[in-house]
Amino acid sequence: MSPEGTSIAQAYPDRVEVRGRDLTGDLMGGLTFTEHFHLLLTGDQPTEEQRFFLDLVLVAIAEHGLMPTNVAARMTYAADPGSLQGAVAAGILGCGPVVLGTAAECARLLEQAESGSPEDVVRGIHETGGKVPGFGHPVHIPVDPRAERILELADEHGVVGANVRLAGRLRDAVEQEWGRPLTMNVSLPIAAVLLDLGFPSSTVAAVPILARTASLLAHLAEERERPLGLQLAAAAEAAAEYRQE
Amino acid sequence: MSPEGTSIAQAYPDRVEVRGRDLTGDLMGGLTFTEHFHLLLTGDQPTEEQRFFLDLVLVAIAEHGLMPTNVAARMTYAADPGSLQGAVAAGILGCGPVVLGTAAECARLLEQAESGSPEDVVRGIHETGGKVPGFGHPVHIPVDPRAERILELADEHGVVGANVRLAGRLRDAVEQEWGRPLTMNVSLPIAAVLLDLGFPSSTVAAVPILARTASLLAHLAEERERPLGLQLAAAAEAAAEYRQE
Amino acid sequence: MSPEGTSIAQAYPDRVEVRGRDLTGDLMGGLTFTEHFHLLLTGDQPTEEQRFFLDLVLVAIAEHGLMPTNVAARMTYAADPGSLQGAVAAGILGCGPVVLGTAAECARLLEQAESGSPEDVVRGIHETGGKVPGFGHPVHIPVDPRAERILELADEHGVVGANVRLAGRLRDAVEQEWGRPLTMNVSLPIAAVLLDLGFPSSTVAAVPILARTASLLAHLAEERERPLGLQLAAAAEAAAEYRQE
Amino acid sequence: MSPEGTSIAQAYPDRVEVRGRDLTGDLMGGLTFTEHFHLLLTGDQPTEEQRFFLDLVLVAIAEHGLMPTNVAARMTYAADPGSLQGAVAAGILGCGPVVLGTAAECARLLEQAESGSPEDVVRGIHETGGKVPGFGHPVHIPVDPRAERILELADEHGVVGANVRLAGRLRDAVEQEWGRPLTMNVSLPIAAVLLDLGFPSSTVAAVPILARTASLLAHLAEERERPLGLQLAAAAEAAAEYRQE
Repeated sequence: MSPEGTSIAQAYPDRVEVRGRDLTGDLMGGLTFTEHFHLLLTGDQPTEEQRFFLDLVLVAIAEHGLMPTNVAARMTYAADPGSLQGAVAAGILGCGPVVLGTAAECARLLEQAESGSPEDVVRGIHETGGKVPGFGHPVHIPVDPRAERILELADEHGVVGANVRLAGRLRDAVEQEWGRPLTMNVSLPIAAVLLDLGFPSSTVAAVPILARTASLLAHLAEERERPLGLQLAAAAEAAAEYRQE
Repeated sequence: MSPEGTSIAQAYPDRVEVRGRDLTGDLMGGLTFTEHFHLLLTGDQPTEEQRFFLDLVLVAIAEHGLMPTNVAARMTYAADPGSLQGAVAAGILGCGPVVLGTAAECARLLEQAESGSPEDVVRGIHETGGKVPGFGHPVHIPVDPRAERILELADEHGVVGANVRLAGRLRDAVEQEWGRPLTMNVSLPIAAVLLDLGFPSSTVAAVPILARTASLLAHLAEERERPLGLQLAAAAEAAAEYRQE
Repeated sequence: MSPEGTSIAQAYPDRVEVRGRDLTGDLMGGLTFTEHFHLLLTGDQPTEEQRFFLDLVLVAIAEHGLMPTNVAARMTYAADPGSLQGAVAAGILGCGPVVLGTAAECARLLEQAESGSPEDVVRGIHETGGKVPGFGHPVHIPVDPRAERILELADEHGVVGANVRLAGRLRDAVEQEWGRPLTMNVSLPIAAVLLDLGFPSSTVAAVPILARTASLLAHLAEERERPLGLQLAAAAEAAAEYRQE
Repeated sequence: MSPEGTSIAQAYPDRVEVRGRDLTGDLMGGLTFTEHFHLLLTGDQPTEEQRFFLDLVLVAIAEHGLMPTNVAARMTYAADPGSLQGAVAAGILGCGPVVLGTAAECARLLEQAESGSPEDVVRGIHETGGKVPGFGHPVHIPVDPRAERILELADEHGVVGANVRLAGRLRDAVEQEWGRPLTMNVSLPIAAVLLDLGFPSSTVAAVPILARTASLLAHLAEERERPLGLQLAAAAEAAAEYRQE
């Protein structure tokens, strides 16, 4: 197809075509939102294993308490209760690589580890003072229970492939280089399992954002009932001192 | 509970508690993303009918072609391909009441129609020159096939309640007042069915935003593969003339 | 002019025309950013008094310490140090009516007070349990020194007009209705002075957003040098307890 | 100072302290918004030459017609006319490196060119198939009149320093490497002049965002009076064809 088109969807007066299907006749009532998300992203319906693991990782990454993204969203909603979408957007803007967006970086790490070797890649990062994506967590020490659960279910379902194996070798290499184990956080198994199941790497980047949107909407529904945002802002402000330089 | 807390989730070193459940043991692998979204929003797992209709309305509203939200997101991504979350946020900001966010307004309309009467409410809006939320559509004329399909499935599943019936009376009242039928768009049946199934009104506002996030992520994955954003921006610019006043 | 055009600017290969002027020949080096902002917004250069008071109110409203908008922006920047614009956008989303955006509401209040009477308008708001825009402040009690300074300078410069006088009557009416004085905050004099100087009401809404963008950029430059965002987020999180319902 | 503080501002009940000054007594009415922006960013008031060139570059970069950022903002405002800040945020999110944010990249280029040589840096970029920041423009061919005007005024004011000279050598090196002249766009002289005048590099990144916020506010004020956003969105949508893959 020529570069200037889209193959996702088109609305006509009497129907909506989505990825070549009729939205009302073929899709509505016939597939779950997770299956529809897969169809939108890739053009195809998922296999049963793909569906299971896509649901699994969306559930795994959606909610983690009063994360910075949820704090920012609740403060924003408190400032403008008329704009739910503005508050959600403020929260999504915090889904950056430091706090949340490392699954996509883990996918790139796995690619590098495959073309080179996990040991060389980890050594290279360590020697230049870098951090290995997917390792380290401020709360989950020594293990991230979500990461372990994903690996466990991948094993039970018999879908362990090259990328999950690479993740294990990366974990060993990190322990070797750093001289102690670091937490393998949830982002690396998410990337590894999705890649082993044949998902395109764009899915790896998309999953955390969709998952966290669900969390943001829940926090904002709670904020509407029991406001907390201005109190969170006051606590943040009180935590930093003003000092004239 | 005191006003200063949250009852959604808390992360501990060795586990994550979500709505009183253990995330890894009770939820991951055990429920779908849609069920998890319901749990996050409301504190409870959905009934099977709630799950079916929550999936249905998320699928119904997710995708509609190159909507303004998708255009804005693709243009933003073209300007900064390094920030997927920034492009998603730009798209979500367009989920305002004129283009997308009318489901929440439809829920309020149904409340008013219930305490008063559909006929009086519609007459009041018409006399003050207003528009009735949930009626009218720029493309779907004379009917919105998504709206009809939701009503059809509500009937098949035997979940038609007071709000779906009110929606029908609103449709008749609009035709009566305006002297011709107006399209009942997808937002009104979404609101009516969700309310009839016992969803809190916060769910009605949240559903379109989660659904459209899936669409935005699909368009941005396509944008990454086959860039379109700058071409869309150029076409928009060319559509407006500069004229000195 | 027909509705489908713009009269702000147009780029040509060899020049840029802005509001009918040649950007490089007529404007660059010839006017200040504040004068240019006025030209962009209104199509005309400001008078000297308009320029003075536009600078004054931009300076008055720009900075106020670790406001929720700055906290949200710093947390967002900490999560993605690669996207300055994403962090600025997150901060701007918090410029909602509760925290910052009341100048535009004050302009509407002044219009109502002019067509009715300040006393009637205030009484109407009080009787329905509302808050009068421009009155009350969480920190500045009993007076907002910025509000007083603007009124003082308006008096010194001889630009007090109908709207500043209405602001004074609103202050008296509020004290009368509430039985005690409430702080007249900075938003009401901003709106009153700008309207008295002939600015369109769109300027009243625009000024706080431009001003706060300068503040956001300063906080993010500081955040880059001396990170604070994650610490602010941690303090916010610690301020709210998780309790299972 | 310890890492956990801010030295920008603090609000007290009876005054606001900004960078060690009293906001109402020392700053309001005493300096322009541009001077205040400099004070906020750097802690000091600008020299007269710094003030002149800060105004100059803010004016130069503010407005350029219906840029993608303005299109996105107008479409967003059309979808939710109640949220001016949401529309501004959507526009700012488009201030990414491809469309607007190259001034900061130009500053880094100048640093590299200074520690190495302009010729080597340009050759390195060309050989790896990259683009040199600050060169090339879709409309301004063969020269960007804003870039030339900034250089001209730098010369007239006698503030040409090492970075402006490096910019000239970069231009020559680009012509040499590419075998033809490329447009030096406005971003490179902005970075060069600001660095020569002693501005910190954070100012270089901040200037385009503040400038474009003024433009966004002007376009949104026009959008309020003469709506254009939905028409722009329709033209964009019509420019891309849907084709089933």
